[in-house]
Amino acid sequence: MTISEIETPAILIDLDIMERNLRRVAGYAREHDLRLRPHTKTHKIPELGRRQVELGAFGLTVAKVGEAEVMLGSGTPDLLVAYPVVGRVKLERLIEVARRTRVTVALDSLFAARQLSDAARAAQVSVGVLAEVDVGMGRVGVAPGDELAQLIQGVERLPWLTVEGVTFYPGHIRDAGPEGEEQVGKLSALVEAMLAGLRKRGIQPKIVSGGSTPSLFHSHKVAGLTEIRPGTYIFNDKNTVLSGACTYEDCAAMIHVTVVSTARPGQIIVDGGSKTFSSDRLGAAGEATFGYFVDAPEAVFHKMNEEHGYVDIRRCRREFSVGDRLRVIPNHICTAMNLHEQVYGVRAGRVEQVWKVEGRGKLQ
Amino acid sequence: MTISEIETPAILIDLDIMERNLRRVAGYAREHDLRLRPHTKTHKIPELGRRQVELGAFGLTVAKVGEAEVMLGSGTPDLLVAYPVVGRVKLERLIEVARRTRVTVALDSLFAARQLSDAARAAQVSVGVLAEVDVGMGRVGVAPGDELAQLIQGVERLPWLTVEGVTFYPGHIRDAGPEGEEQVGKLSALVEAMLAGLRKRGIQPKIVSGGSTPSLFHSHKVAGLTEIRPGTYIFNDKNTVLSGACTYEDCAAMIHVTVVSTARPGQIIVDGGSKTFSSDRLGAAGEATFGYFVDAPEAVFHKMNEEHGYVDIRRCRREFSVGDRLRVIPNHICTAMNLHEQVYGVRAGRVEQVWKVEGRGKLQ
Repeated sequence: MTISEIETPAILIDLDIMERNLRRVAGYAREHDLRLRPHTKTHKIPELGRRQVELGAFGLTVAKVGEAEVMLGSGTPDLLVAYPVVGRVKLERLIEVARRTRVTVALDSLFAARQLSDAARAAQVSVGVLAEVDVGMGRVGVAPGDELAQLIQGVERLPWLTVEGVTFYPGHIRDAGPEGEEQVGKLSALVEAMLAGLRKRGIQPKIVSGGSTPSLFHSHKVAGLTEIRPGTYIFNDKNTVLSGACTYEDCAAMIHVTVVSTARPGQIIVDGGSKTFSSDRLGAAGEATFGYFVDAPEAVFHKMNEEHGYVDIRRCRREFSVGDRLRVIPNHICTAMNLHEQVYGVRAGRVEQVWKVEGRGKLQ
Repeated sequence: MTISEIETPAILIDLDIMERNLRRVAGYAREHDLRLRPHTKTHKIPELGRRQVELGAFGLTVAKVGEAEVMLGSGTPDLLVAYPVVGRVKLERLIEVARRTRVTVALDSLFAARQLSDAARAAQVSVGVLAEVDVGMGRVGVAPGDELAQLIQGVERLPWLTVEGVTFYPGHIRDAGPEGEEQVGKLSALVEAMLAGLRKRGIQPKIVSGGSTPSLFHSHKVAGLTEIRPGTYIFNDKNTVLSGACTYEDCAAMIHVTVVSTARPGQIIVDGGSKTFSSDRLGAAGEATFGYFVDAPEAVFHKMNEEHGYVDIRRCRREFSVGDRLRVIPNHICTAMNLHEQVYGVRAGRVEQVWKVEGRGKLQ
């Protein structure tokens, strides 16, 4: 199968760029003695999780129990569920996963910990816990200090659970440049103070887990950090480029679309909208554009409906006709992957792999 | 199965409200002698398409060939593909659908018409065409006047195609109130002039197809309109409420979520984010909120990541705990449905139906 035979809209993965991205981050983690547990929410494909483990990842990260079930297919020796699992049925499913591979759960409440302990005890299966702390993102996680210590001590008292350390997500750092470096410096000071506070209370976390893709290559500057969980780095996207953490040449995933209408002067409509790209806007910029047209960098992808992408071509030097195929680097590849039943791995113009996105839509 | 046994996040459909919505619009169409071809992109479930046909719909509308293939399962006698189908493989698939039910395609270019004619001729299967005209949305559709006449005359010369009329999508009318009424008046004048222009050129369209959910109940005021294609009305959503076309009591679809974190004062995190709701913002308002909390109307759903919904509860009168289940009316139910593998039809606290969303993710 050649690329032109793939029906659009479709996600194509450049296998050489992907492999380079995987090796770069595996090498960085090795060099700085950081444990790598990549977040698989980006690709959602067990075979790619397997490749990450082959290249040295300690284990894999998922957000939901349904994703954990899918990622068992990668053969990973370790799964981190970086999400508080709440609810009896979900916990029973999680424990089934924990019978088959080592499982750790990130959580920020004793309520979630007690439910997890009850499920683990009923099945007589041990589960690891990372105590989630908020380092500035303002999402989940208790405040560093007393609250964190109380959470850790509370979980330690619960049967069948072992506190392995602390975890945080520095998702508020979206800049890989000088501004990001400054934020990483602040983060490092905060983590250092947090760890000192825990030590004073006799708590010595074995794992200190952080790290997202934009701040990825600053991770070794964070005092006490032992583990990183980047996800997007396998493919990268426009958000990653704008953060400064990579260039467009490092973007392995492109969405191929076809021009379906040129009826309105100065505009083309392509056959991918929010059902193809997701309506995620750019992370940092206030700008509401939805992707980078590799074949027409001056094109402005300014609006979407579900099946229609509106592209302003008034500044483009080339012409467009109905039937033209165009390549787009999306704003956010993780949410785009979630919308596609399958994606294509390509090399030198040939389709080498057709992967089912097995983890797509695993909401529960 | 009771509602509380459904794992969150999940879409629940109130069957009584849905049935009332279906009957109301079927009655309106009958009363005003408008042909009803509901757009099935909202529900993506063949069984619900079948119900629409049972209640008097002439046929069903889809956006993509993959959706047409799925909707064959409804047993509909007629399918309108309201999207220009471009590409050889897609057209071969479309013709296979046209062997099994009557198919009409909306298009706005002779390029698309020629490709369609070639595919129809190769298979010796007739296909209907609606010429798409732009009435102010600025998406697809040629300008009314010469361009429209040329498109119609050009398509009429192509073998195996029959021009059945014209189609437009008044998606720019998002207000069901007085402002919308004024816009419908302008639309009516435009359509009247367009039809007069066509008549002067000897063209008398049999079908004049328009109509979206917000402007739905104004449709009979559009001169010459013979057909409506609303989609959202089966469930309705926050956008429909804000347009004035329905109230929250008419919203049949709710997304049930669970509180997973209360660690940050004044905020709860629920287990549904952009992977559950889509990141679609409100159509009309500039406001960036993502749904209406039925159990806490003062809650402000102001931010999402893929799996996290950030809810500001500072103005709420009630308390929240980890594990609480909450019901949310989403901004845009069509894009939310596309994210769920299955949805639950409920009546009086019991689950009566579990429907697979068969048309989800049919991008091609």
